[in-house]
Amino acid sequence: MEALKNYTALIEQELAKDQFPQSPTELYDPLRYFLKLGGKRIRPVLTLLSSELFGSTAEEALPQALAIEVFHNFTLIHDDIMDEAPTRRKMPTVHEKWNTNIAILSGDVLLIKAYQLLAQAEADKLPEILEVFNTTSVEVCEGQQMDMNFEDRMDVSISEYVEMIRLKTSVLLGGALEIGAIVAGASKEDRKRIYDFGQYLGIAFQIQDDILDLYADPDKFGKMVGGDVVANKKTLLYLMAAGNANSEQQEILKQLQNEENIELKISRTRELFDHLGAKEKCREAMLSYQDKAMEALKGINVPEDKKAGMISLADFLLNRNW
Amino acid sequence: MEALKNYTALIEQELAKDQFPQSPTELYDPLRYFLKLGGKRIRPVLTLLSSELFGSTAEEALPQALAIEVFHNFTLIHDDIMDEAPTRRKMPTVHEKWNTNIAILSGDVLLIKAYQLLAQAEADKLPEILEVFNTTSVEVCEGQQMDMNFEDRMDVSISEYVEMIRLKTSVLLGGALEIGAIVAGASKEDRKRIYDFGQYLGIAFQIQDDILDLYADPDKFGKMVGGDVVANKKTLLYLMAAGNANSEQQEILKQLQNEENIELKISRTRELFDHLGAKEKCREAMLSYQDKAMEALKGINVPEDKKAGMISLADFLLNRNW
Repeated sequence: MEALKNYTALIEQELAKDQFPQSPTELYDPLRYFLKLGGKRIRPVLTLLSSELFGSTAEEALPQALAIEVFHNFTLIHDDIMDEAPTRRKMPTVHEKWNTNIAILSGDVLLIKAYQLLAQAEADKLPEILEVFNTTSVEVCEGQQMDMNFEDRMDVSISEYVEMIRLKTSVLLGGALEIGAIVAGASKEDRKRIYDFGQYLGIAFQIQDDILDLYADPDKFGKMVGGDVVANKKTLLYLMAAGNANSEQQEILKQLQNEENIELKISRTRELFDHLGAKEKCREAMLSYQDKAMEALKGINVPEDKKAGMISLADFLLNRNW
Repeated sequence: MEALKNYTALIEQELAKDQFPQSPTELYDPLRYFLKLGGKRIRPVLTLLSSELFGSTAEEALPQALAIEVFHNFTLIHDDIMDEAPTRRKMPTVHEKWNTNIAILSGDVLLIKAYQLLAQAEADKLPEILEVFNTTSVEVCEGQQMDMNFEDRMDVSISEYVEMIRLKTSVLLGGALEIGAIVAGASKEDRKRIYDFGQYLGIAFQIQDDILDLYADPDKFGKMVGGDVVANKKTLLYLMAAGNANSEQQEILKQLQNEENIELKISRTRELFDHLGAKEKCREAMLSYQDKAMEALKGINVPEDKKAGMISLADFLLNRNW
């Protein structure tokens, strides 16, 4: 991420400025708190990189990049309520530190704030920016709803799962990039290509995340290894394993869901997943989306050397060491 | 409202069309349900009337009018969660009929939907429309937060209370009108005047609502008479009474908050309020805001006969018979 640190710093610098009124403090303190919790700021950096890629400057797309980050944080505040998550980046979530009502309402204000930032665009580009942003935002909500629905379903298919992660996480990467491209005046064709690059990159990243949950080096992985297994989440790893399992193995998978010894649950699940080739199948799927992303990037009509920033970001995302 | 029924019908007709995809049904069914619960549709009618007032047509401002109504419904869905309201228009609220997570997420989608409707404006008018809408939306959230804060406070002043109702309910009437004016290409000065008309009308209406809570004809009033008293709400009626009360009367007011016999609680409170002249004081305040509204309308630079629709809407709102 070394090559990208100037972009991240630009975003952090803007987010560190106080963007909100003092009063009512119950509404704005949670937002000041949450926006400073940190994070990789990948989405707004994508917007800045895309603006540069298509011949404008990073600064030109700064308000739109911030809008993307602010929107992402809005979804986190509301998702944390829905998931009853006690912490986010090792700090209490908004509904935990304040309460659910404040988390709902301050989230709402943050979504409006995203539109205030977007609206700073040049007037002739605003309709297209809004169209991409609105479509993407609705899709992110649809993805979150699908994710919640999957918790109660035993018959989720692999294609449904991929569609869920596409909506919940990947379209926002695509949207972030396309908005940067609009700011820079890119062609319709290149806008579509950079969107696809982000979308496929996002799917590949999410599949990698599913693999790392069970196979990461505990010293490098930010979260508890095996967290998805403990929570009985139907990740792609699980779906690939279940898809290959015979009726006896299906039964073991079911029993493992109720195993109360956490260490045993994780190690037995990993054994079974290994036996069923789940990791390899996920890795194949991940690589195929990575290929699609790179294919889309390759098709973009700008000199190859201008694509270095995008490639190093993709590399940072898909060869995780964090 | 006879004169305005064509406008209301236009809004109802649009809302009756299915505006949402089929899937995920958990996300969109609540919105289909909620938008058909009815209501007076006053806010979108204001947008239509304003567009006509300033020389355009009602149809021209239809998407923006719908955006205002959709936004209003978004606030109702989220407010109902925060207020733990079991019913809305005698039907179950979204979080009751489905659950809180669905109410949060479908509300979020509805807010984005409002922006999708707004964005249908002519490109050269979009930045100004967004500016008014964004400012107004944030203020509505601030008003809701102030309202929640007041529940735990005993020292709310009359001016704080008026500021709360201005933000929570009145600015949206002003914003609805100003957006109609922008669609029709009104001058900056007239935009300010029509906004003020709506804002003052909204404050007057809300004060009337406070009075009616305790003094309405039960046969005509849609809600339970005395509901605010039972809920110990610090309405303007209460604040006016408390402001005039001596220490003995303050004590009685305090005791009445804990009275468990509801009929007795309402009748004793009314007696004391009457004695303290609370109703008259509220009525004076209401009339003064009504005057300000009419003053603002009078200043608008269009022929007086074109203001008939606005006047009949103000009359409908401020001489409630419903």
